[in-house]
Amino acid sequence: VKATILAIGDEIVGGLTIDTNSGFLSQLLRGAGVEVDGFVSVPDEEPLIERALRFALARADLVVTTGGLGPTADDLTTACVSTLAQRPLELHESSLRAIEQRFRDRGVEMPPNNRKQAMMPAGAEVLPNPDGTAPGFICPVEVDGRRAHIASFPGVPREMRGMAEASLIPWVVRAGGGQQFGSRVFSTFGLSESRLDELLEGAISPTEARVSFRAAFPRLQVRLNVSGGSADEVDQRLNELDARVRDRLGKHIYAVGDEGMEETVGRLLRQRGLTLALAESCTGGLIGHRITDVPGSSEYLLLGIVAYSNEAKRSLLHVPPDLIEVHGAVSEETVLAMARGAREAAGADIGLATSGIAGPGGGSPDKPVGTVCIALKWEGGEWAKRFQLGERSRGWVKEMTAQIALDRLRRLLIDTF
Amino acid sequence: VKATILAIGDEIVGGLTIDTNSGFLSQLLRGAGVEVDGFVSVPDEEPLIERALRFALARADLVVTTGGLGPTADDLTTACVSTLAQRPLELHESSLRAIEQRFRDRGVEMPPNNRKQAMMPAGAEVLPNPDGTAPGFICPVEVDGRRAHIASFPGVPREMRGMAEASLIPWVVRAGGGQQFGSRVFSTFGLSESRLDELLEGAISPTEARVSFRAAFPRLQVRLNVSGGSADEVDQRLNELDARVRDRLGKHIYAVGDEGMEETVGRLLRQRGLTLALAESCTGGLIGHRITDVPGSSEYLLLGIVAYSNEAKRSLLHVPPDLIEVHGAVSEETVLAMARGAREAAGADIGLATSGIAGPGGGSPDKPVGTVCIALKWEGGEWAKRFQLGERSRGWVKEMTAQIALDRLRRLLIDTF
Repeated sequence: VKATILAIGDEIVGGLTIDTNSGFLSQLLRGAGVEVDGFVSVPDEEPLIERALRFALARADLVVTTGGLGPTADDLTTACVSTLAQRPLELHESSLRAIEQRFRDRGVEMPPNNRKQAMMPAGAEVLPNPDGTAPGFICPVEVDGRRAHIASFPGVPREMRGMAEASLIPWVVRAGGGQQFGSRVFSTFGLSESRLDELLEGAISPTEARVSFRAAFPRLQVRLNVSGGSADEVDQRLNELDARVRDRLGKHIYAVGDEGMEETVGRLLRQRGLTLALAESCTGGLIGHRITDVPGSSEYLLLGIVAYSNEAKRSLLHVPPDLIEVHGAVSEETVLAMARGAREAAGADIGLATSGIAGPGGGSPDKPVGTVCIALKWEGGEWAKRFQLGERSRGWVKEMTAQIALDRLRRLLIDTF
Repeated sequence: VKATILAIGDEIVGGLTIDTNSGFLSQLLRGAGVEVDGFVSVPDEEPLIERALRFALARADLVVTTGGLGPTADDLTTACVSTLAQRPLELHESSLRAIEQRFRDRGVEMPPNNRKQAMMPAGAEVLPNPDGTAPGFICPVEVDGRRAHIASFPGVPREMRGMAEASLIPWVVRAGGGQQFGSRVFSTFGLSESRLDELLEGAISPTEARVSFRAAFPRLQVRLNVSGGSADEVDQRLNELDARVRDRLGKHIYAVGDEGMEETVGRLLRQRGLTLALAESCTGGLIGHRITDVPGSSEYLLLGIVAYSNEAKRSLLHVPPDLIEVHGAVSEETVLAMARGAREAAGADIGLATSGIAGPGGGSPDKPVGTVCIALKWEGGEWAKRFQLGERSRGWVKEMTAQIALDRLRRLLIDTF
């Protein structure tokens, strides 16, 4: 199966919205063994939508569209598909009832123009939308003697993603004769892509799975795509490969799936019943921000101190002034004193501290921009290390420092507690 | 002038990289009066690149491509343009020397395959790349009797942006007969798009400027595009319109251009020689993170305390325990005590505090998810307010609370200091 992905909307072609739907759909379809030959984006104009559909259908067996399914006059996708497929629009009763129900749930009456969203090309398979008013559809179409299908989804990413996973992929599997597929993603940190590639060499043959890497700074993901056979066979194969990947990559894998490092750390803290206090200098609150992005983090995060001034380091974290004078604010000695101070101030099990030169100013030949120190203090032990991250942007140094700090905390929780 | 934008690269069509180049170019071109009729993305495959170019050239006067200008075998853009334009590749001597110089500056010899990057279609205008090895070009092309141009840029956003601003736009202006253009962006906060639209009604006629809105949560931008006349006339027109926009929107404009609220606040603090201390509960460090994203923020940010636990609110911020018991942690009274405590602990001029229920848990009928309190304390005054932001996602509540808090700090700095 060959597919082209078409994003429809003035806001995309105007550069006001970045299209993330097409990339998502491409990954989803490729995981199911579909070849994606390109993306097209067009504004909300009937001739341009039809022209793009014809261009795509000259080559693709499946065109997946996003956007243009709303209730207003500039939502034109369904009408264009109906014209191209020569299938007149018909009212889809159960969709209309679902839309009416959504409005009723919010205590308002359905505006008359939302009825348009229940009009579907005759003979199309309708795809329900549990998160919005616009249902999608998969419509057979014949253009210039070629038979193909157009699958249309709303442009709101949250709605589209759920619907595509629930409806499009099973359709692709049926169209492909029932061959199942599956994928597994490992989130890693601390190794480069080429090093990951080296470590995995010979572990997985190309006939067993397609292995791909995805850099999503600061993490790096390894993805296995498996296809063919029954659902049970696919599962069994993934579990076998999972063991081999873990054997090669070990603790560099911090999560299976898209979980962020802050979620992994939160889970480990909660499992072990431990509490945390932070003293952030160069990260400026970013570690606290990430940790508190996780619901329920108030159970384990007691305190964070953004000790940007030396005075704050002294008065709140009780860092001895002579320590800063002798070793400097960016030193293993000072950052360790900060970790101790935060832990004591909060009465927490673990103290985590960062200090560094995020730039662009503040560097010296001895301690250039990108010099950062990270420390951990716990009952019966402590750890501190200086890193040279290189003269990168301020934002990059902050992000990387936060990620290293969370990763070291993760490793401490696994190895020591 | 009609333009189509073509992004070339396996990583884009594979969904591994999100294409931000096309949106950037679209905004740039529209600002110069060019109509952008769509985007296309194709993998690094010659037949698919040529097919996409032909599709675009059937309608567009200008096709702008990004990507595929590297030195490796799968970089095919220049070869495809050469074939389509029937203009053989020729060595461009000064580009070759520039590439060699780049390698020499880094103390290494140029690998032989980088010579490929200096091969240009005969008669193309070469666009130098100050930030990388790949020069770009603008090449005349005639397909099916239509004359048009293909402008090709590297795919690295930083390189492409500088080159497009320096070379493409002057070319468009020349192609359009020397008509100049200009734009101005106002970053606003606190009003909805429809309210902004209302306030601006009648202020600017469509013949004077194109007015557009861009939601970039949590900010909302108003953009004026002006075209026609000399550069001086364009400037003068923009200044006239600027005064009218300011008259209508007043303090809701926090910056001209893309400046973030944290930059505006930093500038105001620095100008007034004031220092700041933060006490963050529901924002969890996000305000500190944003403030410290600005270089030099250590001059005015003395301290941030992420007082997630009530114990931390008591011991470090000296919030009286009975205050929390009577009014709750999320109350104007408690958040004001936090602002006072942070200010005193740091010896800062201004204390800023947040407390709220970010969800998904922790809500009650009296204080549902999205209830947040913000306070400011300064010499001789204080302010606190409760907001109902609605039951949105945890991340949204955090972002919106941080933005409101920074905006209130900005207004205090303007009105009182």
